[in-house]
Amino acid sequence: MSTTERPDDRTISSPRSDRVRRIAGLSGRSARRRHGLFRVEGPQSVRSLVEHRPDAVEELFLTAEAASDHGEIVDLAGAAGIAVRPIAPEALRAMVRDQDAAGALVSPQGVVATARTAAVDLALEDALAALPAAGEPATVLVLHELRDPGNVGTLIRAADAAGADLVLLTGASADVLAPKVVRSSAGSLFHLPVAGGADAELLYPALRAAGVAIAATSGYAQDELFAAEIPARIAWVMGNEARGLPAAVLADADLAVRIPLAGAAESLNVATAATVCLFETLRRRGRE
Amino acid sequence: MSTTERPDDRTISSPRSDRVRRIAGLSGRSARRRHGLFRVEGPQSVRSLVEHRPDAVEELFLTAEAASDHGEIVDLAGAAGIAVRPIAPEALRAMVRDQDAAGALVSPQGVVATARTAAVDLALEDALAALPAAGEPATVLVLHELRDPGNVGTLIRAADAAGADLVLLTGASADVLAPKVVRSSAGSLFHLPVAGGADAELLYPALRAAGVAIAATSGYAQDELFAAEIPARIAWVMGNEARGLPAAVLADADLAVRIPLAGAAESLNVATAATVCLFETLRRRGRE
Repeated sequence: MSTTERPDDRTISSPRSDRVRRIAGLSGRSARRRHGLFRVEGPQSVRSLVEHRPDAVEELFLTAEAASDHGEIVDLAGAAGIAVRPIAPEALRAMVRDQDAAGALVSPQGVVATARTAAVDLALEDALAALPAAGEPATVLVLHELRDPGNVGTLIRAADAAGADLVLLTGASADVLAPKVVRSSAGSLFHLPVAGGADAELLYPALRAAGVAIAATSGYAQDELFAAEIPARIAWVMGNEARGLPAAVLADADLAVRIPLAGAAESLNVATAATVCLFETLRRRGRE
Repeated sequence: MSTTERPDDRTISSPRSDRVRRIAGLSGRSARRRHGLFRVEGPQSVRSLVEHRPDAVEELFLTAEAASDHGEIVDLAGAAGIAVRPIAPEALRAMVRDQDAAGALVSPQGVVATARTAAVDLALEDALAALPAAGEPATVLVLHELRDPGNVGTLIRAADAAGADLVLLTGASADVLAPKVVRSSAGSLFHLPVAGGADAELLYPALRAAGVAIAATSGYAQDELFAAEIPARIAWVMGNEARGLPAAVLADADLAVRIPLAGAAESLNVATAATVCLFETLRRRGRE
């Protein structure tokens, strides 16, 4: 029997180890850039990562209880040749120190992974190369200076559910790999190509060059969404939570539609507006 | 010249006065119950309160700068016979000590009001009495144990925009008068009847007695939303963020529909699901 330690098989037990601290530090954007890694938390997101993007996984940590409760993650990891690192519950909890909106600590439920940023947050040209070929229908969601990480994650999830092919974020938007974006996307971040940090000056011409029409919503638009023609290749552009879209982007759009407001509401929040546009696009595709 | 002080005309200057502390305390549910009051913050929400529900206003506070920037609030208050209490910026800021999701202090932008809870958070029977008469179309949104205040406010706003007639919340849901609900409803809380704290045992029979069909969403439902018949009088029931709807509520619903999921997403979050159902209902009403 060898007495040689095999560190990669041993349970990580200390909440204060360098490794644990480094992963906790990935809550910050500068640490994510420095290490080229981001953190994925909880069984649903990690399962989606390991299933859909095994190539992006750097490390995978499960407590004994989580490994028993979520055998499917262990199986998926095994099939993809990804090692599962056993970890004590208190060390795993120390990797995630974020709070939710109510101020309660976020629980990773015994499952954390790290993944490579470059594999998930694509360069604009690589993301566009993943679009369906010219002539095929395509749905793109563009988030123009969307700042709230919860909104960004929720909209990536909604875009996925509505069958969108691509999500693009301009440079002043929330970081697409921030923990709250990853959590609120509920795994959808790993289901479709996503590119953050795009230069708005390049983004719109590049979409048009790919035959994609730029569509914006406006309370002043003449055409109502439910009556408007929706091009087969369309990018829905959604603006900042407080300021909306810059006037120049709206003026430059290939089409602008008005979402009907039936009550006394003055406006829709951006998540509601994007959801209505994306699912109306899905509904039309299903009917055509 | 009289030297008698007229306290109601004098600028409130101390951030530590009893009045300021009492209004700051309305962040808590028990204080709201004890005083029978809740807090409304910011120009948009307060303008909506004063315009649509002047009967509910208890007190209205504006800084000099806000009174100058938002003359329409001062005019609406004057027309409704509501006194505007001048207040120093630091005293007004001390009335609102909440943080937003990013941990930043919420800014009321110089405008705060208090309003009477009983005038806005209706009893179930009063809310149902406000429904359109039998034979008329009616759209109701029921939030069944929805816990996140941001979701509740966003959904009241979406329901308003989609022309819903009523929003009901079961007892275990977030308090409909919590500051974050009021903020995220963006004034819509004052546009349509809302009743919180309803007993689920009474709620569904009462809706049926009013001729309203109970509709739920389920990933396992046979009928797809976009193809399903939508009754003229319908209550969309949305369940808890984590657990969804209790099986008994789903089993007892008059119809269950499946929202199509085109991508690899496993589910929709509740705000997305409710938005899709409410706006599809609006779309049909517009077409019929």
